[in-house]
Amino acid sequence: MDEFDIIAKYFASRTLTRSDVIIGSGDDCAILDIPFQKQLAVSIDTLISGVHFPVDTPAFDIGYKSLAVNLSDLAATGAEPAWVTMSLSLPEANSEWLDNFAKGFFKLANQFNMQLIGGDITRGPVLSITIQVHGFVLPHKALLRNGAQNGDFIFVTGTLGDAGLALQLLKAKQSVPQDLLLRLNQPKPRVAAGIALCDIASSAIDISDGLFADLNHILESSHVGASIELQNIPLSTDMLKNINFNDAIELALSAGDDYELCFTVPADREERLKKALKGIDCGYKKIGVIEVQQGLRLINKDGSLFNIKDKGYKHF
Amino acid sequence: MDEFDIIAKYFASRTLTRSDVIIGSGDDCAILDIPFQKQLAVSIDTLISGVHFPVDTPAFDIGYKSLAVNLSDLAATGAEPAWVTMSLSLPEANSEWLDNFAKGFFKLANQFNMQLIGGDITRGPVLSITIQVHGFVLPHKALLRNGAQNGDFIFVTGTLGDAGLALQLLKAKQSVPQDLLLRLNQPKPRVAAGIALCDIASSAIDISDGLFADLNHILESSHVGASIELQNIPLSTDMLKNINFNDAIELALSAGDDYELCFTVPADREERLKKALKGIDCGYKKIGVIEVQQGLRLINKDGSLFNIKDKGYKHF
Repeated sequence: MDEFDIIAKYFASRTLTRSDVIIGSGDDCAILDIPFQKQLAVSIDTLISGVHFPVDTPAFDIGYKSLAVNLSDLAATGAEPAWVTMSLSLPEANSEWLDNFAKGFFKLANQFNMQLIGGDITRGPVLSITIQVHGFVLPHKALLRNGAQNGDFIFVTGTLGDAGLALQLLKAKQSVPQDLLLRLNQPKPRVAAGIALCDIASSAIDISDGLFADLNHILESSHVGASIELQNIPLSTDMLKNINFNDAIELALSAGDDYELCFTVPADREERLKKALKGIDCGYKKIGVIEVQQGLRLINKDGSLFNIKDKGYKHF
Repeated sequence: MDEFDIIAKYFASRTLTRSDVIIGSGDDCAILDIPFQKQLAVSIDTLISGVHFPVDTPAFDIGYKSLAVNLSDLAATGAEPAWVTMSLSLPEANSEWLDNFAKGFFKLANQFNMQLIGGDITRGPVLSITIQVHGFVLPHKALLRNGAQNGDFIFVTGTLGDAGLALQLLKAKQSVPQDLLLRLNQPKPRVAAGIALCDIASSAIDISDGLFADLNHILESSHVGASIELQNIPLSTDMLKNINFNDAIELALSAGDDYELCFTVPADREERLKKALKGIDCGYKKIGVIEVQQGLRLINKDGSLFNIKDKGYKHF
């Protein structure tokens, strides 16, 4: 099989078609229509085998997750997903692997009405997947990191640390409960929540590097500080069954790979928030407040400060 | 240095800023304005060290070329360059290497008024660069592969095979004339020619895999055939000084990496073509004609058929 055969067999035939795609895969460029009075939101990210996921991760999960982590960036911006490009480097063209990888990828792409509009496949010494996602936002409505203000409440969706625990158990060759493994391998991008937050949240980010590092990105961009109450950080029952509270909090703060949203909301919009997120399946929880004093204070139940050991995923 | 330091020091500080970039690097997504009544053209491509360029290629050239090959796709579509994203994986963060890589990249990005709007940098076992370029085209004006018609003349810009010869000499550890080396390491994307061809050419492609393979893409997409006169293929003086005509033609047909444009023009537009490409610095030459009979016929000077040995760059 050469590149063009692989694209035709596993990818081009499986993508849905959108009316705003004038030319999709197969020419030098894709040609695309942007809806009237919308802006384009784009994000690109690479996952490398052995760096961003264990080398023995199932192909389906790699395909799924490599799109999920990018969709999570659209979610954190409140953008409506539209198109995706993919550059895939792999050591060999194994039919079964490619088939499962593509199935995982298109499970998510089709769920979010995204068309694969281009990409390339090359032989390279290590499995590596680069994906760029494209979505739409209304002008001035994108969720950004720089809008948090003193007094805003801080929220997170879902539960934190589950992916980190799953990875820890995998590395220790212990059995991993199925729900926990899905949190690592098939994270659910919070696209609907992000879109619903566009008129309400003052800032947002997705939690890929851990709550501590990612909330700090909001604080630095917004030139504010914050306190969070550790006992309010949402933890799953799987988490609390497997490890003690302090270890769970460490994972929630620094393990990353959660792809939940962290966002801030002015106090007078809490009612609107409740209405907007009603029916969103992931849940959300208030964990703290934005303050004038710079820095991020982690408050234990007894009011003392928690000393974090690990400050989050290091990319380099 | 972590990822964010590298981005700030070598990349974010060097990019120009465009008024259509609402949010550039540094948030979850870039947010972008598309000019009124324009369409978006996008292309993504990966270059891997040791696969797409020799491992000892200078960092400046790698930075330059990785953008050039993508800009060439915009050129082949007749699109006006606008934005670029980059995902860089590298085994180690060497300051001098990063500095030179970024200098090469921004030499070209700044020349074509492109803003770097996002990307990521990760540690990976092999140097790999994925770049996506974004440009604008007028509706219905993009150059595509599928419009060639019986009787159209076939043209190419520049000279063909030079990059292939340079690579051949490098591999044989022979000295490479400077001009020839530049053709391999710093190809000039034919952006101005592509834009000028929008109202004139019936089809276009950039020559990345070799003239034989790439012209065949046009023929297959357009459901036509063609004949080309081999003595009309433009060859550089460097080429003819170093190897004989037949070997030169083989390189021109199949070595690839040229990033010249191959395009077709209806016979009655030859005068318009002359006017439109007047002043374009790369030159161009008529090499053949589109025919009803499927397939690509390579005609020697004496009228006999040339048997090609190698049909072009294999991606996989």
